[in-house]
Amino acid sequence: MGTDVAAPLTFNAVDPSTGESLREYVGATPDALDATVEAAVEVHRSGVLLDPGVRARLLRAIAAELRADGEAIVALGQRETGLPAGRLNGELERTWRQLEAFADVVEAGDDAEAIIDTADADWRPVARPDLRRMLVPLGPVAMFGASNFPLAFSTAGGDTAAALAAGCPVVVKGHRSHPGTGELVAAAVSRAVAAVGLPAGTFASLHAAGRNVGEALVAHPGIAAVAFTGSHQGGMALQRIAQARPVPIPVFAEMGSNNPLVMTAAALAERGEQLATGLVGAVTGSGGQLCTKPGIVFVPDGEAGERLIAEVGRLLDETEPPILLNASIHSGLRDGLERLQAARITSGDEREALQGCRQRPVAARDRAARLAQEPELLEERFGPFVLMLTYADEAELLDALAALPGQLTATLHAGADEQELSARVSAILVEKAGRVLYDGFPTGVAVTWAMQHGGPYPATTDPAHTSVGMTGTRRFMRPVVWQSAPAHVLPLQLRDDNPLGIWRRVDGVLTRDAVAA
Amino acid sequence: MGTDVAAPLTFNAVDPSTGESLREYVGATPDALDATVEAAVEVHRSGVLLDPGVRARLLRAIAAELRADGEAIVALGQRETGLPAGRLNGELERTWRQLEAFADVVEAGDDAEAIIDTADADWRPVARPDLRRMLVPLGPVAMFGASNFPLAFSTAGGDTAAALAAGCPVVVKGHRSHPGTGELVAAAVSRAVAAVGLPAGTFASLHAAGRNVGEALVAHPGIAAVAFTGSHQGGMALQRIAQARPVPIPVFAEMGSNNPLVMTAAALAERGEQLATGLVGAVTGSGGQLCTKPGIVFVPDGEAGERLIAEVGRLLDETEPPILLNASIHSGLRDGLERLQAARITSGDEREALQGCRQRPVAARDRAARLAQEPELLEERFGPFVLMLTYADEAELLDALAALPGQLTATLHAGADEQELSARVSAILVEKAGRVLYDGFPTGVAVTWAMQHGGPYPATTDPAHTSVGMTGTRRFMRPVVWQSAPAHVLPLQLRDDNPLGIWRRVDGVLTRDAVAA
Repeated sequence: MGTDVAAPLTFNAVDPSTGESLREYVGATPDALDATVEAAVEVHRSGVLLDPGVRARLLRAIAAELRADGEAIVALGQRETGLPAGRLNGELERTWRQLEAFADVVEAGDDAEAIIDTADADWRPVARPDLRRMLVPLGPVAMFGASNFPLAFSTAGGDTAAALAAGCPVVVKGHRSHPGTGELVAAAVSRAVAAVGLPAGTFASLHAAGRNVGEALVAHPGIAAVAFTGSHQGGMALQRIAQARPVPIPVFAEMGSNNPLVMTAAALAERGEQLATGLVGAVTGSGGQLCTKPGIVFVPDGEAGERLIAEVGRLLDETEPPILLNASIHSGLRDGLERLQAARITSGDEREALQGCRQRPVAARDRAARLAQEPELLEERFGPFVLMLTYADEAELLDALAALPGQLTATLHAGADEQELSARVSAILVEKAGRVLYDGFPTGVAVTWAMQHGGPYPATTDPAHTSVGMTGTRRFMRPVVWQSAPAHVLPLQLRDDNPLGIWRRVDGVLTRDAVAA
Repeated sequence: MGTDVAAPLTFNAVDPSTGESLREYVGATPDALDATVEAAVEVHRSGVLLDPGVRARLLRAIAAELRADGEAIVALGQRETGLPAGRLNGELERTWRQLEAFADVVEAGDDAEAIIDTADADWRPVARPDLRRMLVPLGPVAMFGASNFPLAFSTAGGDTAAALAAGCPVVVKGHRSHPGTGELVAAAVSRAVAAVGLPAGTFASLHAAGRNVGEALVAHPGIAAVAFTGSHQGGMALQRIAQARPVPIPVFAEMGSNNPLVMTAAALAERGEQLATGLVGAVTGSGGQLCTKPGIVFVPDGEAGERLIAEVGRLLDETEPPILLNASIHSGLRDGLERLQAARITSGDEREALQGCRQRPVAARDRAARLAQEPELLEERFGPFVLMLTYADEAELLDALAALPGQLTATLHAGADEQELSARVSAILVEKAGRVLYDGFPTGVAVTWAMQHGGPYPATTDPAHTSVGMTGTRRFMRPVVWQSAPAHVLPLQLRDDNPLGIWRRVDGVLTRDAVAA
C-alpha cells in the first residue's frame, strides 16, 4: 500500500510482434492523481449524474465518438497488442454496442430497481410508513483495464460503461500494454463528456509505469469502488488495499479461471471430431488470452478419448503460433509450462524460438484424479494452452470436479441420452461456476441482460456480481430508501406519477402505473 | 483467527434486572461445531432447498411453531433480557410475520430474479446463444444473533428467514445474553424442519461461551456466507477472518450507527414540543438499545433550540431508568459516557447507582463544528443516550453532516416551506445513509419490500445489502447463467413454459408469459 515514489514514471509501448519500442508515455504523478480523483468527487457531489437522461446521452455520445474514430483506434490497437484487425473490429463494435445497451437500460429506468411501499396504518405489528427505495451511485469508480481486451474491457469497456450507467464518475488506470490505444479511446470519451455538457471530471484516464498509480488510486479516499480484470495476484493486491483503507470499499475483481470442460464418452462418439475442432478454436482464438479460454478438459479413458487428445494435438500443431500480448504474458506462460512438471506435454514444442512474442499452442495431459493432490495443475495458464485430464469413470470425474475452485464458466458435452448423468454433473458445475454451458465453448461472452461473467472465488472477489451484461451496474450502486419523504426531495423514479414511466414494484406488485394518491 | 481451546466452555444466563445467575449453558466443542457445519454442507449439496415449495413450507412451519410456543418464549425472553412483555410480544409477531412474508416472496418466485435471453442468430457483433440466469443459494450461512433483538434479529430472525428463503442451511451462533430464549426458538425451528420432512442439518444453533465458537464458525471451510448484527469491533473481527480464509466469503455485518437527526429552526417553531417528545421516546424506547436509536441531533442555536434541549433533558429525567440487556452493555455505556469528556452532560446523573443493569437516560451537548475534530463524539453509545449538537447556520450544519461516517439512517425535520434547504440537506443525507427519513424517528423498521436496513461503512461491511426487508435474500445468493441448456437440467424458474408462473425478464421485457418455443 502507498505510493512507491521511486517507481519509474515513464514507459514505452511495445509492438509485441517484433519487440520494437513504440512511443514513450509518462505515468501520472501523485499530484495529478490527486487532482483527477478530486475532480471526480466534485462531479459526484454535484449530483449531475443522477439524471438518467444525461447518463443515457453520455453513453450514446461515447459510442458515437468511438465509431467515428474506430479506424485509428483499431490500427494503433493492432500495433500495440498484435491482435488481428478482425478481432479488434469486432471488439470495437462490442464496445460501442454495450455503451448503447446500457443507455437503453438507463432510459428504461431498470438500473434503479425502484420499489415503493405506500403507507399502511393497518400493517402489523406496527403501522407502515411510506417507503420508497432505489439504487443510487456509490461514487467515483477506479477502473483497471485488462491487457487482453484493449477496447471491450479497457478504457471505455464494460466496467466504464456500467459505472457511468450507474451514475459514477470513472478514473481509469490504463494498461501499459496498449497505452496509445487507451489514450485515443480516452480522448473519444472526453469529447463525448464535453459534447453533452458534463464536467471534465466525469471521466479520466491515467497512465501508469508500475503498480504505484493503481495502488494509490485504490487507496485514495475519494474512490468509492474498484473494477478490475486481470491476474489473481493483481486483483487480490487491490482487494487487500481496499480492505485496509480507513473506509473499506467494494472491489469487483475478475481474476481468471480454468473454465473446465467435461466431455463424456457418448459425446465423443456422437461428435468427437467437431469437439476437437471447437476446442482448438477456443484454446487458440485471440492467442488463448481470454478469461474464458477452456484450460482444463475432462476426457474419458478409452479409444474415443485418445482419438480426441491426438486430434487436438494435431490441430494445435497446425495452428499458426499466435503473437502474445506482451513479454510478461509470454514469459509467464513459458514459466508456467516449465512448472507443469508432472503433466506430460502432448503437442507443440513450447520452447521453440520464434520471433517476438509468438508462442506455439501446447497441450498437456494427466489423470483427473491428480487434480485434488496437485494444485499446480489448477494454475491458470494464460495463452494457447490446454490441459487434458483423463478419467476412468463417473466417480473419478465427479471427485475431480468437486476439487475445482470457483470458476467463471464450466461446460458439459454429454450425449443426447445422458439425462441423468447430465443432471449430476450439472449440479456440481452450478456450484462451481457463474456460467454453465452445454454443448458449446465458453469463449465469446454475449452482452445481454442474462449474461453472468463472474463466479465464486477465486474467479472473482465477489460472487454476487458480473462484469458483463446489463446487471453489471449493480457493482457500483447501493440501495437507499426514502421514508415519508415529501415529493420535492424524491428522485423522479420514486414520485407518485412515475414521470419516467419506469417499472417499479409498488406494494409488492411489478407495475408501470402511477401510485394512486 | 483459530479456536482458542482455553476459552471457558460453560456460561450462565443472567437476569439483568437483578444480576441473578440463571441456568448454565455449555458452549459447542470444536467437534460438535464441525459436525454441525458438515451436516449443513450435506443439506446444501443434496439440493433439497432448491425447491421453492419446500422453502415456503418450511418458513410457514417455523412461523406456526413460534406462534404456538410464543408464551413460553416471551416469558423466558423477559427474564433473560429485561425487555418488557409488550416489546417482546411485538417482536415475536414481527418474527413470525417476516417468516411468512419471505414465504410469500419464495412462492411468487421473486427471489430468483429470473432473466432469459433467447437465442438470436442476428445478434451483433456475434450470434447470441440462449442464456437463462437466476440467483442460486451460496451455501451454509453462519448467523450471529444480536443481543438487543432476542427474537427478530436472533435465532429465527430476519437473517435466518432470509437465508432459508434464499435456500441456504443456517448455523446460528446464539447470543449469550439470551441462551434459553434462543434454545426455545431453535427447538421450534427444528420441529418445523422435521415437520416438513427436511434433514435436521437444515438448521442448527450453537451456544458459545466466548468468541472461539463464532470465530471457528466463520473460518470453517463449509460456511459460505456470514450474517452479523452487533458491534463494530465484533463485525470487523469476523470480516477479517472471512477475508483471511483460503476461500474468502462474503460477510454482511450491520455494526450500528449514530442515526443523525437534523432539526431546523422552522421545524422547532412549528412543532418543537412534539419533536422533544418523539425524540425522547426514540432515545429511551427499548432502553435506547436499538441500532436505529437517534444518537446525534443537530439543533439550531437560539431560543427554540435551547428550549428543545431543556425539554429533552426534562423528559429524559422523568423517564424510568430502563434495564439494559446485560452487564457488558451497561459498563460499555458508562465507560463511553466517561470518555465523552469534552461534551457537557445536560441531564441525568449517569453514575447514580441503581439496581442491576438499570441506567438513567442521559443527554449531552456540544457544538456541531466540533464533530470534524473530535472523533470521540462519533462513537456509538448504545443505550439511553443522545448527543445534541448546536449549529449557528447552514454552513456549520452542512460541514458537520459532511464529516459524518456512513449511517444506517439519517433524518430531517424541516419546516413546511424549507424546500430548498431540504433538498440541500437531503443530498448529503442520501450520501451518508441507507435510509433517509422525513419528519419521523428512525426506530421501528418495517419489514417490507422497500425497506433498506444497511448503509455505507462503518454502518455495515457492504453497502449493497440490507438485513431487513424482502431484498435481504440477496446477501445469500449469487447469479448463475445456463447457456444453451437442455430443458431437463434447467431449474423450473427458467423453463420455457414458466411452470411456477413467476415474473421474468425475457428478451429485456418483464413478463409472466411462457417463452415462445
